[in-house]
Amino acid sequence: MTESDFIARLRTLPLHPGARGLADDVAVLGGLIVTSDTLVEGVHFLPGDPAADVAWKLVATNLSDLAAKGAAVEGVMLNYPLRDADWDAAFLDGLAAVLGAYDVALIGGDTVSLPAGAPRVLTLTAFGTAFGTEFGRDARAPARSGARAGDGLWVTGTIGGAGAGLAIARAGVGDGALLARYRRPVPRLAEGRALAPLVHAMMDVSDGLLIDAARMAAASGVAVTVALDAVPLPAGVDDALAAATAGDDYELLVAAPPGFVPPVPATRVGAFAAGAGLALTRDGAAVALPRHLGFQHGLSGMGCADPRA
Amino acid sequence: MTESDFIARLRTLPLHPGARGLADDVAVLGGLIVTSDTLVEGVHFLPGDPAADVAWKLVATNLSDLAAKGAAVEGVMLNYPLRDADWDAAFLDGLAAVLGAYDVALIGGDTVSLPAGAPRVLTLTAFGTAFGTEFGRDARAPARSGARAGDGLWVTGTIGGAGAGLAIARAGVGDGALLARYRRPVPRLAEGRALAPLVHAMMDVSDGLLIDAARMAAASGVAVTVALDAVPLPAGVDDALAAATAGDDYELLVAAPPGFVPPVPATRVGAFAAGAGLALTRDGAAVALPRHLGFQHGLSGMGCADPRA
Repeated sequence: MTESDFIARLRTLPLHPGARGLADDVAVLGGLIVTSDTLVEGVHFLPGDPAADVAWKLVATNLSDLAAKGAAVEGVMLNYPLRDADWDAAFLDGLAAVLGAYDVALIGGDTVSLPAGAPRVLTLTAFGTAFGTEFGRDARAPARSGARAGDGLWVTGTIGGAGAGLAIARAGVGDGALLARYRRPVPRLAEGRALAPLVHAMMDVSDGLLIDAARMAAASGVAVTVALDAVPLPAGVDDALAAATAGDDYELLVAAPPGFVPPVPATRVGAFAAGAGLALTRDGAAVALPRHLGFQHGLSGMGCADPRA
Repeated sequence: MTESDFIARLRTLPLHPGARGLADDVAVLGGLIVTSDTLVEGVHFLPGDPAADVAWKLVATNLSDLAAKGAAVEGVMLNYPLRDADWDAAFLDGLAAVLGAYDVALIGGDTVSLPAGAPRVLTLTAFGTAFGTEFGRDARAPARSGARAGDGLWVTGTIGGAGAGLAIARAGVGDGALLARYRRPVPRLAEGRALAPLVHAMMDVSDGLLIDAARMAAASGVAVTVALDAVPLPAGVDDALAAATAGDDYELLVAAPPGFVPPVPATRVGAFAAGAGLALTRDGAAVALPRHLGFQHGLSGMGCADPRA
C-alpha cells in the first residue's frame, strides 16, 4: 500500500474538524496548532549522523511546521526509543541545545525500548498557539490550500543548501555552512509570525521547492509556475534545478496577493494562475519538468504525500 | 542508559507547566488533556498479533490514559510506519473499528516508510477535554500523585485477564474471552468520567496492579498496602499474585477518601497510609513482595518508568 493509498483510506475514517481533511501539515484544536513528525533511521537521517544533530532536526522540523502557520511555540512531546547509552546521551545534549535555542518547553511523551539492531524511529509532536489567539476557539493559521490565481509564490531565505549539505554528509567532506543547513535546520518562527497575517497560503519547504509548490497549487485548486532563474541559492550552490528538487531546507513557501511587500527577507519565485499543475521556466522560457520533483517520503505531514500535481 | 536515567535527564530540561513534572501519564494544555504512547513490535505486541488488534490496542491504551483523567475524547493523531500492504490494510480495518466503537475522530499524524525487516514502531497521541471544561483554561484531571493517608485503593472491573490472554496468545490455544482482554482492551471512559470528580488520584493499570499501585503511592508520598485476597479476578483466573503482577488490564486504579461509594463497579483492594513503599497482605497476614511487581517497560507515559517503590 502506498502512502497515498493509506492516507486516502484514512480520509474515509471519521475526521476531526481540526484535521483540515488530512491535507495540511498541522491540525487545529481550539487555539492550539498541533503537528507531529516521525524520523526513521536510514530513511530520514543517516545512521552516521551525530545524535545531537538528529535531536536538533527532529525538533526543528516540527517547529518549522508551526512556523508555517504563524504559530508561537507552546511546547513539544517526545516519543523516544532507547537503544544505546552513548547515543541517547548525545541526543539529550542536542535536545537541550535546540529547546534552549528556541525557548521551547518539554510537555511529555513516551520512552520505549527497541529490539537489538532495530532502526530508531523517533516521533515529536509540537504544539503552538495560533497568532491572534491564546487558547481561544478561533485559531487562525494559513493553510496550504489558500493560494489564488494571481498570487505570487514567495520563499524565505535560500534554497538548496540542505541538499548540498546532505551530499557533503554522505561524502564526508565539504563546506561546513552547507552541512549545517542539512544537519541543523533553522525553523523560520519569527518569519512565519510576520508573514501569517499577510498571506493567502503558507507551508514549509520540507521535500523540495518544486514538489511543495506543486502541493500548494494542487491543494488550492490552481496552477503554479516556478521561475528557476529566480530561485535564491546560497553560496556554494549554483544548480537551481538541483536546488529546487532537494529537500530539507525548511524555508517558508508563501502565496501572497499582488502588491505584497514581504516583511522579512523573501524572494518571489513564481506565480499562481487558473488551471492545475506545475510549470517551470528559466529566463522566461518553458523548461521540461524533471522526473523527480522532490522527496516523496520526506519529512511530511500526512497531507504531503498526495501531490496530485 | 536506563529509562529512569533518561527521564531523569529529561526532567533537567525546561518543562512546560502542563507537563506535570513528567510524573503523570498525561499533559495538560489549556483545557486539553494530551497523552502519547508508542508500541514496538516484539516489545509491546507480538509479531504474530493480528494487525487489526494492534490498531485496537494502540488506540485503546491511549484512550485509557484519557479515561484515567476523566476526560472526554477529542480525537487522536497517528504516526504510522508503512511496511506491508496486507498488514497495513488490516490495521486500517482495526483502526476503523476502534474509532467507531468509541466515537473518536482522527486529527492527523504522519506516515513514514520503514527499512525492510525493521520492527514496526507505532505512535498514537490522544487528545481529550478535561471534565468540567471545554477548551477552558482550568483543566481538572486527577493526577496519580493525589493519594492521601487514609484513602482506600480501588480498582474497576477485574485484574489478570489480559495477562492470562497473553499466555493464551503465546500458546495459541485457550479461552477466547481472556484472549480478547489482551488483544482488545476496553478503555474505561465512562467509568473515568464518573470517578474523576470523586477521587484523590487516578491512573490506569497498564503495567500491573502492584507496580502501578506502588507508583501511585510513590508519586503521592504515601505508603500503600494491597490485599491480594481482595483482588477481583475474572472467570478462568485464580492466581491473585500472578494477576496482580500482569499488565495490560487497563482498568482504573483510584485513591478515594473514606466513605467513598463507587459510582461504577469497583473493588476496594487496599489502603494508603503515612510512610512509603508497597506492602502485600493475604487474609490479613503480610506476604513477601514478589521480585517482579509488573512490567518495567510496558505501555507507559514517561512518569511510569520511575516507580521509586
